[in-house]
Amino acid sequence: MRVYLDNNATTIVDPTVKELMDPFFCQMYGNPNSLHQFGSETHPALRVAMDQLYKGINASDNDDIIVTSCATESNNWVLKGIYFDKIKNGDKDHIITSSVEHPSIIAACKFLESQGVRVTYLPVNSEGVIETEDLKNAIDDKTALVSIMWANNETGMVFPVKEIAEICKENGVLFHSDGVQAIGKIKVDVQEVGVDFLSFSAHKFHGPKGVGGLYIKNSSELTPLLHGGEHMGGRRSGTLNVAGIVGMGKAMELADRYMDYEYKEVRRLRDKLEDAILKIPDTFVVGKKEHRVPNTILVSIKGVEGEGMLWDLNRYGIAASTGSACASEDLESNPVMEAIGAEADLAHTALRLSLSRFTTEEEIDYAIEHIKQAVERLRAISSTYSYAPKDHKSGL
Amino acid sequence: MRVYLDNNATTIVDPTVKELMDPFFCQMYGNPNSLHQFGSETHPALRVAMDQLYKGINASDNDDIIVTSCATESNNWVLKGIYFDKIKNGDKDHIITSSVEHPSIIAACKFLESQGVRVTYLPVNSEGVIETEDLKNAIDDKTALVSIMWANNETGMVFPVKEIAEICKENGVLFHSDGVQAIGKIKVDVQEVGVDFLSFSAHKFHGPKGVGGLYIKNSSELTPLLHGGEHMGGRRSGTLNVAGIVGMGKAMELADRYMDYEYKEVRRLRDKLEDAILKIPDTFVVGKKEHRVPNTILVSIKGVEGEGMLWDLNRYGIAASTGSACASEDLESNPVMEAIGAEADLAHTALRLSLSRFTTEEEIDYAIEHIKQAVERLRAISSTYSYAPKDHKSGL
Repeated sequence: MRVYLDNNATTIVDPTVKELMDPFFCQMYGNPNSLHQFGSETHPALRVAMDQLYKGINASDNDDIIVTSCATESNNWVLKGIYFDKIKNGDKDHIITSSVEHPSIIAACKFLESQGVRVTYLPVNSEGVIETEDLKNAIDDKTALVSIMWANNETGMVFPVKEIAEICKENGVLFHSDGVQAIGKIKVDVQEVGVDFLSFSAHKFHGPKGVGGLYIKNSSELTPLLHGGEHMGGRRSGTLNVAGIVGMGKAMELADRYMDYEYKEVRRLRDKLEDAILKIPDTFVVGKKEHRVPNTILVSIKGVEGEGMLWDLNRYGIAASTGSACASEDLESNPVMEAIGAEADLAHTALRLSLSRFTTEEEIDYAIEHIKQAVERLRAISSTYSYAPKDHKSGL
Repeated sequence: MRVYLDNNATTIVDPTVKELMDPFFCQMYGNPNSLHQFGSETHPALRVAMDQLYKGINASDNDDIIVTSCATESNNWVLKGIYFDKIKNGDKDHIITSSVEHPSIIAACKFLESQGVRVTYLPVNSEGVIETEDLKNAIDDKTALVSIMWANNETGMVFPVKEIAEICKENGVLFHSDGVQAIGKIKVDVQEVGVDFLSFSAHKFHGPKGVGGLYIKNSSELTPLLHGGEHMGGRRSGTLNVAGIVGMGKAMELADRYMDYEYKEVRRLRDKLEDAILKIPDTFVVGKKEHRVPNTILVSIKGVEGEGMLWDLNRYGIAASTGSACASEDLESNPVMEAIGAEADLAHTALRLSLSRFTTEEEIDYAIEHIKQAVERLRAISSTYSYAPKDHKSGL
């Protein structure tokens, strides 16, 4: 049996999405910008897709949704665009983000620091989210942008984006949110929250890899990251990835259609898995269930190295993660676990399990069985766990 | 009948390429950076693809080929990376390019000018290529980069890249070439030419849209455009577009395999089409056949507006272009025609016809027939042509 519980890293493309993309490779392959039927015959599908994107996040006709290659591009675009618009060629000098953002935000901020930008990395509490009081205190009259994720990729914790948006608005500061881990898991409504920029990637909600987007409220100014021709109204150049856009639109529509299922069934299966794991002694899950997106569990299993656990589960066909796949090659400890203040040895015991609407009850039962067995096997050979006194605290 | 003669705008995905991509949407959908079989099972295909890319342009093991979302991204990356590395945070202040580069180069240069960079736009001669003497004269001790295309998108003219590379090397200046219109049409050998950076897009050589690359000689320093995780050795972040990379690799291999066919058959059909058009009075083709890539014709048909011609041909299922699709929405006159010094009325008469290995003899015969008829129809209603004296010169 193969069980995919790494949906926060990437997701299966919904077969309906794939089917809709198929004709745009070898049949309707024209460049949409061309003045002939090979180009124009792609327009109806592109229009449908763009409508699906606008509807999916409740953007208004005054707003822009610009297709990019992924949220990493969208995130870099916002940060570097604001750098050029408001900092290098303006009178601001400050960006605020959190310490648990995706590597594309953190690394772009580190780069901007090397260019003289002041960056504040807000700490997170034991639930893994920022305190809005800290945000209020961090904003000053030189702050150009606040960039805080909608939901965390590792814990699944939903951030207080509405409150953050209000604080930003009161202070005349732009608010960007990396919505990658929210879309498809919870309802994302850009107008209700009042965000200025929102990044997303299709492959996190059963669309194809290599395509994403940036929502821009009121089509406001933002220096392009990809300068060039007239594509996307001159805001993001490069020949349109027609198949990708068509696929992303459909994936967004399906995400919306399955939202109830996500809230009920995916949550039920996630909770079943979580409850079973928490019955194993010395386990700890970050963040309250009701504060998280419905599909994610970040669990610390004392005495069990995250990587060891992954390898053991992988032998039985179960795919999980120690945290973000975007930083997984260097086998470091989980940065969110570190940020919430877990002791060093616990930060190495993180296991992330993330479900999707394609996850079945049978798969969850199989996963529960094998996770229990893996913990037993690995604790039996653990140098830290076997000899620890029984009342040893988790360190949190 | 449908005849696609706009292959410089984009190409049909080779069905072999599509077939190879197919399993990476709904079956092998894992994130290659993940530590489990869903991730690792994508590795063999990715390795094959990267090998195909290295072999296709004859990169060495010391070089980097970094996958991007398209050549527009690669072009922006080089220009802005060099800006941060050598200009903003270095002692250079100058970039040299040509006046007939792709909009992604021109627009990025215009942006850099707004940031204080000196940019020289080299003029082109009546064949549409730069004179290397002009390049020598433009380089000074503050020049950081020369960015000159390998082949022009509108005329198909091949630029003297080997000579340019030598001039750059002698002067200690980096040389970037936009290879988008060369790969798949002529042999591109980065080591033989000695280029430092080379941009390319898969969709120009029968690969998918939304994926491209940047070749970096000796893996040399270049500040990322997309900061983030560990993808592509930390040089270009974002979840790998597995299907796109697999498709691009295969497309590169096929481009190489069909190179002889391109040089012989595609050229023969192009020449047949060109000779037939030149039999129509008052027509003019930019650049000598033997100096162009084998698939491209940029013809000026006196008295016939390019857009009128497109619409007429389109009625008969023939797809052509007035120039770059990347700038086609604004219906301006052809910028290359302007750059080579054509009079304003002629710059509006440009028609670009670009073939591929999928173009058949039957299609070319059909196109010849209908182009002749279209010219007759359009000249009959032309206000400038019908009344002009018979010996009126073309203006060039």
